[in-house]
Amino acid sequence: MKTARVVFNGALHTATPAGTDLIRLDTGRIVNERDVRWLPPIVPRTTFALGLNYADHAKELAFKAPDEPLVFLKGPNTFVGHRAHTVRPSGVDYMHYECELAVVIGRRASGIKKADAYDYVGGYTIANDYAVRDYLENYYRPNLRVKSRDTCTPLGPWLVDRDDVPDPMNLTLSTFVNGTRTQHGSTRDMIFDIASLIEYLSAFMTLEPGDLILTGTPEGLADTRLGDEVVTEIEGIGCLVNTIVSEADYYGEAACASHWARSER
Amino acid sequence: MKTARVVFNGALHTATPAGTDLIRLDTGRIVNERDVRWLPPIVPRTTFALGLNYADHAKELAFKAPDEPLVFLKGPNTFVGHRAHTVRPSGVDYMHYECELAVVIGRRASGIKKADAYDYVGGYTIANDYAVRDYLENYYRPNLRVKSRDTCTPLGPWLVDRDDVPDPMNLTLSTFVNGTRTQHGSTRDMIFDIASLIEYLSAFMTLEPGDLILTGTPEGLADTRLGDEVVTEIEGIGCLVNTIVSEADYYGEAACASHWARSER
Repeated sequence: MKTARVVFNGALHTATPAGTDLIRLDTGRIVNERDVRWLPPIVPRTTFALGLNYADHAKELAFKAPDEPLVFLKGPNTFVGHRAHTVRPSGVDYMHYECELAVVIGRRASGIKKADAYDYVGGYTIANDYAVRDYLENYYRPNLRVKSRDTCTPLGPWLVDRDDVPDPMNLTLSTFVNGTRTQHGSTRDMIFDIASLIEYLSAFMTLEPGDLILTGTPEGLADTRLGDEVVTEIEGIGCLVNTIVSEADYYGEAACASHWARSER
Repeated sequence: MKTARVVFNGALHTATPAGTDLIRLDTGRIVNERDVRWLPPIVPRTTFALGLNYADHAKELAFKAPDEPLVFLKGPNTFVGHRAHTVRPSGVDYMHYECELAVVIGRRASGIKKADAYDYVGGYTIANDYAVRDYLENYYRPNLRVKSRDTCTPLGPWLVDRDDVPDPMNLTLSTFVNGTRTQHGSTRDMIFDIASLIEYLSAFMTLEPGDLILTGTPEGLADTRLGDEVVTEIEGIGCLVNTIVSEADYYGEAACASHWARSER
């Protein structure tokens, strides 16, 4: 089962797929997917994100693969839904996309062993975990200006139930920028797999339903420009569409002058 | 006004102070503060914590003071209330307390200027932001095993309304271990003050009611031992009591063997 959260005519609905470009609202009505506003398919509680969790990506950045998971937290402010706009800050030189399999925790989990880890997974979705590299002084532990900015983590479109994804460790990930494929990999190349991550984290942090683990990204990152349509796709999970906009377009010219730029020396 | 959240006879109550050792429940009943279970005075949403935000503490650790706020996020799993138990992991060599003024955001805040920052503060409480130094590979960006462990951030006892704290930048902070004062400082020695932190963060992350900023700790950190009673006190805010216990005492011997230790190579 795939479910989404959408707004239609000012009301929040649960939706399911209903064929090409169509979705079925919880009222039974079928509408075009362009006629709704998509929200993230869950309200994320604690969000964990992995740095350098694909060997090819670590190599691309000329880092050695980590000995233990490099995990950092992201704020809930950063999430937007399918077809949302993401702001590229004024004056930055490099902001890249990251296609990532997002694991949604379904049950409270504390001290869980690898072998039991999937019992605690509720489902999966897609995250595009944008990073503003200009602010990155440490790849191993990226700071908030790199990874927790408002609008900078599209999530969705669908929450796919765990049992509908028989082999989450063997899914193709792709990113397309304006129709050209720029990133391509497989979840089988994760350094720390989903079960290992749940074991690692639940050993010292109790996980709760709605917690998210963004499992990292393979090689193929590239800078994005204003107006780019960035599509992150994962086999069997879905296709998440996002557009890069300027601060002025997003906030309006007036607000923008007094907003983001200020603290961004 | 000071308010707390407590559990009495299995029901959740709001409480206010009612004289030495006494609190008044929202039902009007007055009870001894030892006869309730204290919860954190708010349900924290996003929690920001500052590294090296007191010049004396940075010096104590032989680091230069940071040029911009060193902020990291903490998970909601880590909080416990007044008089709770905090687990010291088996086999670690150094786990220190940190007395910190915690600022509670009261209104949605985006792109806020320093001069207006206090309009967005709801109140204050005390955090004891324990750190397990054994796991610390980077002071500038502490990882989750250092700073987001279950039970490792006592918070409370009271949420004190903003207007009852006329000068939050001039409050004495103290920590007492088993009755001996070991940490002593003043919020006036913060490198980045409360208004600057709200300006800095709200420039790229929308803050929401219930968000917390743990503003850092002055010098005077020391290792803690099993059984220690650690009291963190801030002038006008309150006195937060915590006791250090072993994994075995907290989880029970059997659970413990298969729990924390496992992923803690």
